[in-house]
Formats: sequence, C-alpha cells, structure tokens
Amino acid sequence: MSYVQFPDERSLDFVAIGRLCIDLNANEIHRPMEETMTFTKYVGGSPANITIGMSRLGLKTSFIGKIADDQMGRFIHSYLQRNNIDTSNVVTDHTGAVTGLAFTEIKSPTDCSILMYRDNAADLKLTPEEVQEELIARTKVLLISGTALAESPSREAVFQALYYAKKHGAVIVFDLDYRPYTWKSAEETSAYYNLAAEKCDMILGTREEFDMMERFEQNPEHSDQVTAAKWFDYSAKIVIIKHGKDGSIAYTRDGTGHKAKSYPAKVVKTFGAGDSYAAGFLYGVMQGWTLEKSMEFGSAAACIVISSHSCSDAMPTADQVNDYITRCERGEITAS
Amino acid sequence: MSYVQFPDERSLDFVAIGRLCIDLNANEIHRPMEETMTFTKYVGGSPANITIGMSRLGLKTSFIGKIADDQMGRFIHSYLQRNNIDTSNVVTDHTGAVTGLAFTEIKSPTDCSILMYRDNAADLKLTPEEVQEELIARTKVLLISGTALAESPSREAVFQALYYAKKHGAVIVFDLDYRPYTWKSAEETSAYYNLAAEKCDMILGTREEFDMMERFEQNPEHSDQVTAAKWFDYSAKIVIIKHGKDGSIAYTRDGTGHKAKSYPAKVVKTFGAGDSYAAGFLYGVMQGWTLEKSMEFGSAAACIVISSHSCSDAMPTADQVNDYITRCERGEITAS
Amino acid sequence: MSYVQFPDERSLDFVAIGRLCIDLNANEIHRPMEETMTFTKYVGGSPANITIGMSRLGLKTSFIGKIADDQMGRFIHSYLQRNNIDTSNVVTDHTGAVTGLAFTEIKSPTDCSILMYRDNAADLKLTPEEVQEELIARTKVLLISGTALAESPSREAVFQALYYAKKHGAVIVFDLDYRPYTWKSAEETSAYYNLAAEKCDMILGTREEFDMMERFEQNPEHSDQVTAAKWFDYSAKIVIIKHGKDGSIAYTRDGTGHKAKSYPAKVVKTFGAGDSYAAGFLYGVMQGWTLEKSMEFGSAAACIVISSHSCSDAMPTADQVNDYITRCERGEITAS
Amino acid sequence: MSYVQFPDERSLDFVAIGRLCIDLNANEIHRPMEETMTFTKYVGGSPANITIGMSRLGLKTSFIGKIADDQMGRFIHSYLQRNNIDTSNVVTDHTGAVTGLAFTEIKSPTDCSILMYRDNAADLKLTPEEVQEELIARTKVLLISGTALAESPSREAVFQALYYAKKHGAVIVFDLDYRPYTWKSAEETSAYYNLAAEKCDMILGTREEFDMMERFEQNPEHSDQVTAAKWFDYSAKIVIIKHGKDGSIAYTRDGTGHKAKSYPAKVVKTFGAGDSYAAGFLYGVMQGWTLEKSMEFGSAAACIVISSHSCSDAMPTADQVNDYITRCERGEITAS
Repeated sequence: MSYVQFPDERSLDFVAIGRLCIDLNANEIHRPMEETMTFTKYVGGSPANITIGMSRLGLKTSFIGKIADDQMGRFIHSYLQRNNIDTSNVVTDHTGAVTGLAFTEIKSPTDCSILMYRDNAADLKLTPEEVQEELIARTKVLLISGTALAESPSREAVFQALYYAKKHGAVIVFDLDYRPYTWKSAEETSAYYNLAAEKCDMILGTREEFDMMERFEQNPEHSDQVTAAKWFDYSAKIVIIKHGKDGSIAYTRDGTGHKAKSYPAKVVKTFGAGDSYAAGFLYGVMQGWTLEKSMEFGSAAACIVISSHSCSDAMPTADQVNDYITRCERGEITAS
Repeated sequence: MSYVQFPDERSLDFVAIGRLCIDLNANEIHRPMEETMTFTKYVGGSPANITIGMSRLGLKTSFIGKIADDQMGRFIHSYLQRNNIDTSNVVTDHTGAVTGLAFTEIKSPTDCSILMYRDNAADLKLTPEEVQEELIARTKVLLISGTALAESPSREAVFQALYYAKKHGAVIVFDLDYRPYTWKSAEETSAYYNLAAEKCDMILGTREEFDMMERFEQNPEHSDQVTAAKWFDYSAKIVIIKHGKDGSIAYTRDGTGHKAKSYPAKVVKTFGAGDSYAAGFLYGVMQGWTLEKSMEFGSAAACIVISSHSCSDAMPTADQVNDYITRCERGEITAS
Repeated sequence: MSYVQFPDERSLDFVAIGRLCIDLNANEIHRPMEETMTFTKYVGGSPANITIGMSRLGLKTSFIGKIADDQMGRFIHSYLQRNNIDTSNVVTDHTGAVTGLAFTEIKSPTDCSILMYRDNAADLKLTPEEVQEELIARTKVLLISGTALAESPSREAVFQALYYAKKHGAVIVFDLDYRPYTWKSAEETSAYYNLAAEKCDMILGTREEFDMMERFEQNPEHSDQVTAAKWFDYSAKIVIIKHGKDGSIAYTRDGTGHKAKSYPAKVVKTFGAGDSYAAGFLYGVMQGWTLEKSMEFGSAAACIVISSHSCSDAMPTADQVNDYITRCERGEITAS
Repeated sequence: MSYVQFPDERSLDFVAIGRLCIDLNANEIHRPMEETMTFTKYVGGSPANITIGMSRLGLKTSFIGKIADDQMGRFIHSYLQRNNIDTSNVVTDHTGAVTGLAFTEIKSPTDCSILMYRDNAADLKLTPEEVQEELIARTKVLLISGTALAESPSREAVFQALYYAKKHGAVIVFDLDYRPYTWKSAEETSAYYNLAAEKCDMILGTREEFDMMERFEQNPEHSDQVTAAKWFDYSAKIVIIKHGKDGSIAYTRDGTGHKAKSYPAKVVKTFGAGDSYAAGFLYGVMQGWTLEKSMEFGSAAACIVISSHSCSDAMPTADQVNDYITRCERGEITAS
C-alpha cells in the first residue's frame, strides 16, 4: 500500500534546502577533543548529507542553499558537483559570512559530541528571493530541515520554498534536526517548527524533538499516537518518531505504527546515523517499497555510515546497502 | 445570510492582540509639524483603537499586549480600564522598553502624515508564554494586527494566539495594518503576513497591502477576485479590500462583492478612519446584520472619527453612529 | 588671576559637540505625567542648551552635531539659526535615525523627572569624518558633553574633536552630563569618561559623576581634593564639583577651592539649572572675571532658567542676568 | 645606551593582554585550501605567540585573556600552563562565546593567507573588571595588541590595563597587529589605536599600520620620521616601523634610526614572523643589549619560526636562537 503519492514526470527526484557546512572530524579518536591534534575536512550539514546520500543511491538531486565566498564555500560547491548534485540554486554570500563548522569529538562509539561554529553562518543568509520556484516546480520531493528555520532570512526562505512546493504538488519532507544553539528561545523554536510542520507530508524526528514542538500543548504522556494524530489533522501522511536504541516507528493515517528490524554494525561513531537512515528510507518509499522494507534499507545505510570516519563521504550506493544486508543475513557482520 | 458563524455563550465578545501606543496629536494644525508647538496625548495603535471602538459600541472586550514600565504605559493602562476594556492580559515590560509614539502632522484634511517612534517599543516584546489561552478560549472574536508580526517575540506571540483561537473556535479577524518602518524587508513581511492570513476568517486591508502580500505570486492585474479567491482556499469567509476614495468591497465565498453607500463628513484629518470603520463593521456583522448594513455603520463611525481631533478618544457609541446616519439622511451634514 | 589662557583672534568664541534633541515639557504641571495631557516642544540637550546660552550672552558660537531627517530635525536646525548659532557642521542623518526626546514631569519644584527616548537617536550617529577640523581650528573653546561618548560612532567623533582641539590650542571644557540609560555598563562609561577627561582644561560635574569615573580608583572618602588633584596631573586647570544644594566648588591647580554666593529664585522646575550655570560661568571666565564673579553670574543665569517653563528658550542675555542680580541685591526677589 | 628603563624587582618580566585563539594549519601545503584535507591544531593569536616566545626565552610570563568554555579553550589553557605561563588571569567565558580560529593556507612560501573565524570570539569578551591590577603591578612589561581593541568590552579592558600599567610604572609595548575584519570602520580603528598608542613606551608596526593610524593627519609622504616624532611627543621611547622585505627600523627620541642585519632562512610560510621577531627583540632590550643586537636576535628567532609548520609551537629558546646565528655565520644556512 502506498501512503504517499509522488508526482510523475519530474526532471528531479529530490531537492533539499538548508544547512551546508564543514565537518572537521577528529583523526585521533577515543579521547577528548583537547587531545586531538589533527582534523579531516568533510562536507556536512544534515540536509546536505541526505542529498549526497540520495545522489549516491542514484536519484536526480539538487540543493538550495548559500555558501561563503571563501575556500570552505568553494570546497563545498565542488564536492556537491563531483557527487552529481545540481548546484544551480547554491548561491554565494557576499556579506562576509563564514562557513558553519562542526568539530567532532569521539571519546567512544557511544560518547560523541560536536563543537559547532554557527555565528554569521552563510547558510542562514539565504533569502526568499533566492529560492528558485522553477527548480521546486520540477522535483518530486522537497526536504526541509529545522536548522534552516533558526534565523532570518533563511527562515523566510524555507517558508517560501514550502509555498512553492505546495503550489506545484511536490511531496514535502521535514527532517526536524533541532539544534538548540542557533535558537533564541524554546518558544520561538516551537512557533516556527509548528508552522512549517503543518504543511509537510512526512515528518521525521526524535521523541524529544516532537516534545519540543508540543510545549504549549497537552500530551503529558508524550504519546506517539497523540503526536502523530495532531499532524494527520494537517497535511502529514507519515510521521516517523525515533526512540534511539528502541528503534523508530512510522505512523500512518490508518492508525498503524510500522517497525522494522535493525542490523548490527561495528560502530565508530554515531554521527550521520539519522541522515543516512533518512536517505535510505526515503529512497525506499520513492521506489514504492513497503514502509517496513524502506526502514530496513535505511537502517542498513545507517550501519555503513556509523562504521566509517565521515558522514557525507561514507554515504553508500544502493549496491553497497544491499550487499551490507546480504552480509548481515549471512552472519558475516556482528555488532562491535 | 450569515457569512461567518460566531461561537455562542462566550464571556467576551472581542479580544485584540498587538500594538498599544501613544498618539501625540498636533494642536496647531494646517501647518508643517516644524511649526507645531504643542501636542495632545491619546492612546493609539490600530488594534487598541478598534478595541476602544468595540467597547464604546457596547461589546465585552479585552486586550492582549505589553506596555512600558513608565508614565506612558500607566496612562495607557488606566485609559483602557476607564473604557471598560479588560486588562488582565496587558503585561508590563521590565527590560527598559519604551512606549511607541506617533506624532501627527495635519497640513490639510487630505495631507496628513505621521512621525513614528518604534525603536525598542514595549508592545513588540510580548512573548508567546504571556498570551493567556484561557482568555482566548472565552472570546467570540480574536483580532490580530499586522504590526505585531514585525519583530520577535511579538511575532511568535501572535502565532501562539492564532493557535489558541483555532483550537477554541474563535472567529479570527486580520487587520493588515502594514507599516513599512518596523520591517527589515518586503520579503520578510510577505512571509509572515501570508502565514498568518492562512488561518484567518476575515481579512481587512487596502489594495496596496494585499499587493505586498502577493509579491511572489501571479496577480499582475491586481485583481480583487484573484486575491479573495486565494484566501477562500485557506480559511477566509470575508475579504475586505479597501480602495481609498473608491470605497471598500467585501468579498464572500459565493463570489459576490458587497459595496455600501458612504456618508459625508467635515474632515479634520484622515487618521483613525480605518480603525473606526473596522470597529463599526465588525459590530454590525456580530449583530447579524447584512454586510451592506454593517459597512454603512462602519462608514458612519469613520465619519465621526475623522471629524474629530483624536482617534481613540473619538470612537463613537452606537447611539452616536445611528444619530450621525439619521442626520446625514436628513441632509444636516455635508462634506467639508 | 587667570587660571585658563584662551587663544586670541579666533573667529568663534565657543563650539560645542554632542546631543541635540527635543524637550517635550508638560503644560499641566504639579502632577504625575500620567495626568499631563499636553506638551510643549523645545530644543534640548545639554550642549545645545549651553550653546544657546552662550549665544544669548553675545558670544560667537557654532555647533557640531547630527539631526534626524524629519520635522523634529528641521525644527532644531531652524531654532539654532534663529539664535545666531552657526550650523555649518550640523549634519543631517540619512539612516532613518530619530530625534532624541525628553518628556518632562514636574510633580513639584523639587520633584522633577525625565522620560527619555534615546534609541536610534540621530545625535549619536555623528562620525569622526563629519567633524570639521577647520571649524575647531578657529574657536577659542570646545565644549564636549558626556552623553556623546555613549555610543559609536559619536564616541569616536568626540575623540576626533578632542584631537583637533588639542592640535589647534582650543581650551577644552568637559561637561560630564552622565545619563545612565544610554550606556551598556558602568565600566564602559568610566573607561571613556576618563580617556576624554585626561585631555580637558576644565571639567564640570557633580560629586556622583566624579565618583562614577573613579570606580577603579582609591578615593573611599569621595574627597574633592583627591579628585581634583588627579585631573591636575593631566591637563585640567579648573575642576568644578557640584554638591547640589550645598553649592559648587571650583578647584584650581594652586590648591584653592573657590565658592560663590547664590541667589534666590521662584523655582518652577530644576531642569536646565546646570546648563545655564555652565553658560554663565564660562562666559564670565572668558571675560577675564574672577572665578567667584563668574560663578555668581552662572548662578543668576540658572535662577532665571529654573523660574521658567523651558530650558533652552529661557536662556538669558547678559542684561537679563545683570538685571536679575541687581533685583536680588535690592531684595526684590525672594525664594519660592 | 639604554632607551627604556625597566622597573626593578618585579616577580614577572612580561604580561600580555588580548587574543588567545586556535590556528588550524594546513597539513597538505603548496595548494589552495580547497584542496587541503587535514589541519593541525596549535595555540595562536599574536600576543599569545609572543608570550609563548618570551617564556621559551626564559622570562617569567603571565597572560590576561578570556577563553571559551569548551574543548578549544581548555586546550589553550593547558598549553599555556605547559609552557610555564601563569594563567591566573586567564578567565573562562560563560556566555556561549567560541574560540577564535585561523585556518592557514600556504600556496607557496610567499603566498600565504588566513581564513579567520572571529564572530562571537571569547577573547573579545574580557571585561575591565576581570583585569587584575595586582598582576600588572608586579610585571616589568605589559604588551597590548591592537586586535583586543576591536570590540567592547575587550577594548575597555585594554584601557583598564593601560591605566594600571601607567599607575604602577610598567613599560608598555604596543604591537599594532591590525586585522581589518574585526573592525566596523577605519575611523573607529584609528580612534582607539591612537588613544592607546599615546600611553605606550614602545610601538611596533608596519608602515601600513602607522598609515592607518594617521588617516586624519598630515603625513602625505608616509615619512617614518614624522610618524616617530608624533609618538615621541606622547610617551614613546622606541618606535619600530617594519618595511617588509626592506627590513625594520627602530626610531629613538634622539632622532636615530637603528637597523640590523638579517639572516637567511628556508621559508615554509611567513606566518609568525612578526611575533617571533617581537619576542626576540623585546628579550634583547630587556637584557640591556643594544637595539641593533636585539633586532638581530629577533630576526634570527623569526627565521626559525618561518622555517617551521607552526607559529606558537616553533618559538625558540635562547640557545636555539644563538645556535641559529652561529650556523648562519658559519654559512651553514642559506635562503630557500
């Protein structure tokens, strides 16, 4: 059964809007960052990672974003192009903004943290006028990411993109991706997350992210059913609520909660798990697979990424994901 | 025929949220403000004026807003109370904000302008947490005003109020009241005006205000029908588009455009015309009158205000409006 | 004996730099401002008032400042011109700044307060490049005022003016005029007040203002002698410390503290006392009078202003001051 | 002959105030940064580098500064301690500020650039109240750096430190270190550089930096003599003006310009040359050496640093500098 209907005959499968930045991953790991001496540079940012993932999986992709007019910005631009992502709507800032940074600290596979540089970040300078209606008009899916709502004018650019996506019938996916450090207050965050989510066909987030959005509401039990039902009253067809180790559940309008099995992995770090899961899952849904099969495919993609040093650069092809699943089924891969 | 259904049995008829400020009206008029030596102080701000108007017309009213912790703020508070407006949700700022000011310049009845002080204005400091759900739950109508969307946190407070009004079934009225000086850009303005308007049952504005909201859309002829149809696709039941001297048209979902006759007035200044019209018109609609009769009542109320020195203080009672209409019909009043 | 030597043969006697704003004085007095309904408009701002005072006393004056591009700014400009003050260095802002306002509240002759509007004030937008070296090169005296140090770029403009005054040998007078509301912190205030005061020949302020400047120093007894001695180590020749009702003392490098008798007045309000005192005193010093006689002249000028409704507009001519002194000596004037 | 007299019997030789940050040096060099994939982390910031240099040379040092409450801040703190620099006045920020970053790009030994992250930098949050008078009271030398003047409250903290240094007789050294990106305007920069320089005993800068400070003055020939003479009218005893490849000249009050020979080096990059030169030169002057010998020592120290990958970490000991000079004199080192 198909829960979401994608428009036919579009020249693009997938467009994302939002954060484009640089990850600086610790080379010497299993220690606090104070003792890390060298870092390796990768393209990062949740919507960028998902788009790279979708492109590796063979879909036709494009990105709507803004990069700094510096060496970091030019690196991002060329990396997207090398990954077959259309950059015709990747705009260069000319106000002196910088590229957002994320330094990773990997103390152990389960104790990872990030040191962010988000002041004056170029990606948050995208304006509504820079969003190309024509691009959104020819995609099947638009993915928005919560971090792009954190500041003006990027916030208004996202609402502009949502307006175009609604107008042209693209399926809208909202990856909540809530990062407190760029927001002024929880009230402000909640206000704009809710306004955006009302317009979305699929919403993916953790239980904590949905709790944040419900701060003015009545859901004292933090019930997934209450949460999902709220969004089905607006535009949502699928609401995925992630419960960390307990796995994710995809809720649909028929009241069903769909779960899928997971795979073992030799975990290096947890960064990138959500982005690779999102890419794998959305790929499956767009192929017309069942939600369960799509979720399994997402899980396997995530296993590949968390076994690697990077997020973006480790995004797998469909063959790599299928191969991983096969090897898991054969018992060749066990948890670390 | 009734175009809007108001909820029954609420303890309040009308609640407005937004700007509360001070008008300083020139005493020596018919000259540039440079030559005006004395000014008289009145309560001002479009939603405040409308609420005063509704209260004078006999409705049960309340206001949601924020005032400075100074003499101007205390004057506003006591004036609202003297006008029988509930002030339980009028919050006092404690950050050092000031009361917004509007100095009026009246060079001639048709050449009026305003000098605004809106930096660090207390009314724009209202937060979402300060908006009382319980108050909105017991009103028939919530009126929002565009100027309250101009800045955070007032902007988020308005969206919070809209959420509560939707939840509790209040009829929502949007008085566009667009004032460029408090906004950063036309794109930002357009984004939030549209997000708010989607949720409203009645929208009142000038043709130019609707044009501003359509900057990313296709309405090259500035067609009222195209404009109204857009909002009927969301929540609107009545869209009033004002064409200055050519009068206002109230569009309804059945495709009709309603017009009403106007009345003569001895015009002192044009300030306050829109606010008194809105109060008179809404009063009529809430009485179950036809749109035409409601619009006439609004026009007569406006005539009374523009014949006076102040806006808020000149808001008429129902008897005064009826008396004005009667005198006009008898030919006792002619245009200045 | 002459404590300060003024340069000969300059085409201007007196130039001030800094605040230029509007006073809105309550017409209905002896009540809280909440109950005041009308206000009268005057030019205000301490350095502006002093300059008006100096011009009324017959000196050749000019002003360095910035006005808003609106009706209030144009009123200020024309008022200065009508008072024979050169306005060739009064610049008009084009960034949308507003004119600073001061609403006065006169509850009783001894209970007066001010409600200030200083956000986005045009006078604080003056830049160093706008200060005309040529103008300062041809004045005997430059007066600076503490409020102009409160924000960039006005702060840097004052230091630029000080540099020019030093270079061209003008006598520099510092009227401390400390107003907490425009400053971010007491540390910041103290830093710039001290840097400016080091370069000044005459410093006038209250005991509390000098205390604020000494927050990182050792003067636990708040000793005037310690305070004055500090500044004599820099450039100062005369330090006037005001002790409210106990009168002012002018300290000189020879270790003397000069006091003068005061005059009775029928006090309406206390605003403007300091500005008229400064004008009268400086006038006397520039005439070569003793400090004592200069201080008496300042006191009499102050009496005239505090007996009137306005500050700027009440600044007396030399004849008026002399007449006041004569009448006091005849016993024709007694305290209210 | 001794141009500067250092106070006797202080428990510290050298204290610096200002920028403390992180250098991220490209590991793969001789290419644009776009193609650099890994970076190595070092402590950076001109005054930090000079202090590390002074400590390596055997002096008793301390630092006045502010670090972020994160892994980068803690790395800086421990690095200073490991280098025997007293950190009792290194304060930790608690406002969410980040550590300033400098990514280096080394295209060739003569084509080097820096990509700076200075938004919300912790070092610029130092307040006047955090500067310990007691620490400055017991040092022979206080070094200030221009970048710390770029923003409040760090700017006021520097002026506070200057006040304490004057009060307690420390020799004050000003390393101009002008970096345009943290300043709002050239006028603002010039204003504060001049106010600080007036109070300094030694001033070191490039010809371009002195030109920036003279933007409101008459030195159309960019004459070093005019520049030096200006500062001798204030507090300066030695003014060092750097002319890039043409070498540096140390001007003294007797009108002499002192030059020194330079040494060859196998240049990796030019970063750090000025900081190591300053440390070596100041060390010499504090030993009572001639200016010429001190300048040579500084040059040799600079040669060692520019032959290495890092700035701070390459700062030499006195033995290393002497050894370098000996080897140069033996002809064992030639230019790259």
